[in-house]
Amino acid sequence: MTPNKIKAAIVGASGFTGSEMARLLHQHPDVELIGITSESHTGKPFSTLHPQFLGSIDLPLISAEQVPDLGAEVLFLALPHRVSMDYVARWHELGVKIIDFSGDFRLSSPEVYAEWYGETHRYPAGFGQAVYGLPELYASEIQQADLVANPGCYPTASLLSLAPLVQKDLIEPDSIIIDAKSGLTGAGVKASAGTHFSEVNENFKAYGLGVHRHTIEIEEQLSRQRGKQPLQVQFTPHLLPLDRGILVTAYAKAKAGLDAARLQETVASFYADKPFVHVVPESPGIKTVRGSHFAAVHPFFDQRTGRVIMTCAIDNLLKGAASQALHSMNLMFGLPETRGLEQLPLKP
Amino acid sequence: MTPNKIKAAIVGASGFTGSEMARLLHQHPDVELIGITSESHTGKPFSTLHPQFLGSIDLPLISAEQVPDLGAEVLFLALPHRVSMDYVARWHELGVKIIDFSGDFRLSSPEVYAEWYGETHRYPAGFGQAVYGLPELYASEIQQADLVANPGCYPTASLLSLAPLVQKDLIEPDSIIIDAKSGLTGAGVKASAGTHFSEVNENFKAYGLGVHRHTIEIEEQLSRQRGKQPLQVQFTPHLLPLDRGILVTAYAKAKAGLDAARLQETVASFYADKPFVHVVPESPGIKTVRGSHFAAVHPFFDQRTGRVIMTCAIDNLLKGAASQALHSMNLMFGLPETRGLEQLPLKP
Amino acid sequence: MTPNKIKAAIVGASGFTGSEMARLLHQHPDVELIGITSESHTGKPFSTLHPQFLGSIDLPLISAEQVPDLGAEVLFLALPHRVSMDYVARWHELGVKIIDFSGDFRLSSPEVYAEWYGETHRYPAGFGQAVYGLPELYASEIQQADLVANPGCYPTASLLSLAPLVQKDLIEPDSIIIDAKSGLTGAGVKASAGTHFSEVNENFKAYGLGVHRHTIEIEEQLSRQRGKQPLQVQFTPHLLPLDRGILVTAYAKAKAGLDAARLQETVASFYADKPFVHVVPESPGIKTVRGSHFAAVHPFFDQRTGRVIMTCAIDNLLKGAASQALHSMNLMFGLPETRGLEQLPLKP
Amino acid sequence: MTPNKIKAAIVGASGFTGSEMARLLHQHPDVELIGITSESHTGKPFSTLHPQFLGSIDLPLISAEQVPDLGAEVLFLALPHRVSMDYVARWHELGVKIIDFSGDFRLSSPEVYAEWYGETHRYPAGFGQAVYGLPELYASEIQQADLVANPGCYPTASLLSLAPLVQKDLIEPDSIIIDAKSGLTGAGVKASAGTHFSEVNENFKAYGLGVHRHTIEIEEQLSRQRGKQPLQVQFTPHLLPLDRGILVTAYAKAKAGLDAARLQETVASFYADKPFVHVVPESPGIKTVRGSHFAAVHPFFDQRTGRVIMTCAIDNLLKGAASQALHSMNLMFGLPETRGLEQLPLKP
Repeated sequence: MTPNKIKAAIVGASGFTGSEMARLLHQHPDVELIGITSESHTGKPFSTLHPQFLGSIDLPLISAEQVPDLGAEVLFLALPHRVSMDYVARWHELGVKIIDFSGDFRLSSPEVYAEWYGETHRYPAGFGQAVYGLPELYASEIQQADLVANPGCYPTASLLSLAPLVQKDLIEPDSIIIDAKSGLTGAGVKASAGTHFSEVNENFKAYGLGVHRHTIEIEEQLSRQRGKQPLQVQFTPHLLPLDRGILVTAYAKAKAGLDAARLQETVASFYADKPFVHVVPESPGIKTVRGSHFAAVHPFFDQRTGRVIMTCAIDNLLKGAASQALHSMNLMFGLPETRGLEQLPLKP
Repeated sequence: MTPNKIKAAIVGASGFTGSEMARLLHQHPDVELIGITSESHTGKPFSTLHPQFLGSIDLPLISAEQVPDLGAEVLFLALPHRVSMDYVARWHELGVKIIDFSGDFRLSSPEVYAEWYGETHRYPAGFGQAVYGLPELYASEIQQADLVANPGCYPTASLLSLAPLVQKDLIEPDSIIIDAKSGLTGAGVKASAGTHFSEVNENFKAYGLGVHRHTIEIEEQLSRQRGKQPLQVQFTPHLLPLDRGILVTAYAKAKAGLDAARLQETVASFYADKPFVHVVPESPGIKTVRGSHFAAVHPFFDQRTGRVIMTCAIDNLLKGAASQALHSMNLMFGLPETRGLEQLPLKP
Repeated sequence: MTPNKIKAAIVGASGFTGSEMARLLHQHPDVELIGITSESHTGKPFSTLHPQFLGSIDLPLISAEQVPDLGAEVLFLALPHRVSMDYVARWHELGVKIIDFSGDFRLSSPEVYAEWYGETHRYPAGFGQAVYGLPELYASEIQQADLVANPGCYPTASLLSLAPLVQKDLIEPDSIIIDAKSGLTGAGVKASAGTHFSEVNENFKAYGLGVHRHTIEIEEQLSRQRGKQPLQVQFTPHLLPLDRGILVTAYAKAKAGLDAARLQETVASFYADKPFVHVVPESPGIKTVRGSHFAAVHPFFDQRTGRVIMTCAIDNLLKGAASQALHSMNLMFGLPETRGLEQLPLKP
Repeated sequence: MTPNKIKAAIVGASGFTGSEMARLLHQHPDVELIGITSESHTGKPFSTLHPQFLGSIDLPLISAEQVPDLGAEVLFLALPHRVSMDYVARWHELGVKIIDFSGDFRLSSPEVYAEWYGETHRYPAGFGQAVYGLPELYASEIQQADLVANPGCYPTASLLSLAPLVQKDLIEPDSIIIDAKSGLTGAGVKASAGTHFSEVNENFKAYGLGVHRHTIEIEEQLSRQRGKQPLQVQFTPHLLPLDRGILVTAYAKAKAGLDAARLQETVASFYADKPFVHVVPESPGIKTVRGSHFAAVHPFFDQRTGRVIMTCAIDNLLKGAASQALHSMNLMFGLPETRGLEQLPLKP
């Protein structure tokens, strides 16, 4: 091991998040990636699963059982929800910092979790300890945290769009409608009828109308931004025939007196010192942020209808997952926010 | 010429609508396609422009100047708006029936046209004569018409989603938000930075926030459905990285007392005798309607938020353009509504 | 049942070929589609599996066990190879005509089958009876056949490219290299790592180098065209990130004395009376034949190198599968070749 | 300016190569990117043209006329052929090192250039000075060069496939057939009928049969590998419906005595110390190298036919353009070959 480097490990190597996390950790100047787990491919090089890393990340895969002996200082858990909570329960006591990609610790309580995830939570103690890992809102809490719940991809784009407006009281809180569109990597690496090329290609549809779990995640966070007063949002996800990217188009009724200039100014000043949010002058395309660590946010005020439209584009695997987790890790270890997050986007 | 067949001609051969119109007219059992115009390719076979029709539609292209001498009984004008009005003005007096794909005669008055299209209309007399060609709403007017303004592609999907709800007074009229997504053929055949493959592929974005001309077209038609009381909608179009298809996701606040069963029943009964609208049990993908003449409409009531979500998928070049025009032609000539519109979709 | 219509059934409803076959049979003026089988969805409407046919092909799915009682005159077997042979063995004796999409009866003998398919054939008697269903080469045999082995998709495009050259002795037979590219529907409907959208999209690769089973199918048929003298071809398939279409680029050394004019003339005259082959003046794109029943063939002679390059584009699900089967059915029942095959391509 | 950093400038900012070159130079630890030219956007930030670089590469664009005053030590010319030669002529005398992306200095003489490019060369003196910038073959010449002709994208993949076989005399030189497939960025950024999304998407075709200019570039280089004995290749390019990547499938007749082991061994040992070529165990997909600086080469010997098949995948904008140029720059300035070329691929 290299002295003075942060020892990091990834639990769950086969999916898109695990793969992107490995890519970023491998290139981070202050990190040493010392372990990646996969129960089904133990012993094989990581690059067997992800051949784009042949010659660069050839670390042999280990079992999750070996994690406690690794000596890792930080673990990135890229596991399905319902699975993740058990590992957090076991490892959290060991004194290692954990950044969890699942939905298991994003909500406010075991009761809300049970309601939206349909399952009794097996580590309720975690709720008091987990910090919601959106650095634009909670940087100081994250700095102190040893368990971070990395936000969902849709909530990241939705909250970056709406949090300034809710916090600054510019919109009617119960008028919010979030029409969200995600590339197919958001659906995960598992082969199914729904991820078959011939089903996805040249297709587009809505899914999960009224019941998607990211709804409550967004609602709880926006509620927090207005002093814990509850609010409801309408959230509808759609599936795009492309690999990467989320675009959120969010609508809300403006409160009296808002105009385009004040909207622009509020959003721009909210993000003035946030290194990973760009407030952009035209409604962003998701291709512009592919491979980037940035959210591109565009505020628009429709004078005719009195509504605000926020559009926000992110790379769902980066700002919507791996980059955001690394941003949190930087905060947790006292590093500059942008360390290891300097790669430029790949376009086209 | 074949006796007893309707003589039809297409003005404007180079675009996607002209091409699809030719395909449908060629296969219609009661129609003879006797002329197609193109100023830039006069004399060449139509299949030179559209090689998929080699051996089937090889008609030599003519100039629009030759149209009056053709003996056509019906003209399909596949021309840009601002251009179309001048041809309508010249030919309308000749006694030929016209179905116009442009936006020039869809609105209620020259004044509204000037406001949204930024141009003084040069054939204001046409407004009194043109019928809005949405057969699900105006079949009897279309039967009597000799000038039909074929609806825009976005308005078709939007109105099929919302007209039943507005007409039956199920929703708050000023709460309507239409988040619409279209395949690239909606942007037209012209090569530009915005239609370059590398700009569109793997990309997705909103455009025309707050100012798209289809907004007023939707507003005027919905207003008509509630007894001419005005209303405003929020309409946002987006560009999908695929060839064909529109999906509209429309939101509105339900009036008190609505529930899922009544919503379903209202929509189903509204379309019970409409051959080209399917009320479907799951939110439709656009690939299911590609190459079809149908709109697939899905009503959803969110009990939690009290909102209605309507999703509607159409093939923008067919139900959103050429099929709908042919449907109107069938009505204008006293043919069964589905005549010549029996091709099945091509999937995948 | 409708009198005077040919009673047809499809065995195997879930795949792309079964779906396309149903679409074509449903629209054929002289056919009644009386049964479609699916063991896993028995009792459900066909449109449950393929929702694009909602309202048009809603026939309830039956078990293959019910096929003998159907009264069908012709069966289309859309089953995997190794499975198909057992059904052919059982039903062939019943006097029903069979068109088989699998590879089980395309080769010359059970021995060759065993060598390339790695399995002992369980109905060797079928080899003497099956006719290779490429109507451009074997129309008269097909007319007499009651068991037709529908050609593979790659062999169809390869043989339409090369058969005229081999038969007319224009090329060195052992110099043939076939570089073939297919859309993803060629890989079938089954979900797997290889058909996952994120694996296929933006990707392209060769597979099956030197061992693909279509190699022997092409070799045997070309050998037949030169009086049963054996020959070998190099055949390499590739996977394209799109739904439909095959392009074959075939290379061969010209025999002395060939020139561009004679090549063009030979190919054009070979296909002069073949309704489903277009000899085209430019190398064809597969999008031009999507949804069409045609092969587009382009001959090119490179004076500098002395080689012939043939390019051929087909829709793999139509001319490469369902259209070709229907063409054979027309021949078997004494119908005009093009009956029921008059739909025009859908582009873009 | 930063002392001790190499001062670099890019001439021609609007295309894909200019954009990728800027991305790489910006991240190179030993380079300072001091100028980028664009005649049509002079004065605007580079990120106006390429918004993915907003906040990172905001350098104001300058005119090419200002280049001599910049103080650059190396110029990257991302200009069309026929244009590039005039700038090389003017600047070459100034003592600045030039890496030229055009085809103007890749061939052996003005005569060959005139024959294949159809134009009299206006700087014939350049032919004696230019070095062909394929580091795997000509590293030592490149180290001494002050004018490097960066190879074409197709020739890069073709030569990496075939040079070892020709140099080691494993194949019949006149039997080479190169079937090449490129993503759409290879066609350039200019909007035209051929780059329109609806023409490219879901399409695939061959072009330039027998006449593509990369043919002679490949022939001259392979000839050089066999001691200047001439040879001819058959080269056919095809257009893929995706953004980035080239796959070359190259065929040749093996000389007597070759077998799979010797082929593998020859190729592996040829590239043993070449940092940017991976000899891979399965035929590579282009998605595995997207965003990477590597060529993935796979040798295959078909025992049955006696032919070698080489497949090679590269990112056409990187190993096929910008990475290769930077690799040459590293050699020219005495830097380690891999300096600034350590980014990992972005997949999916």
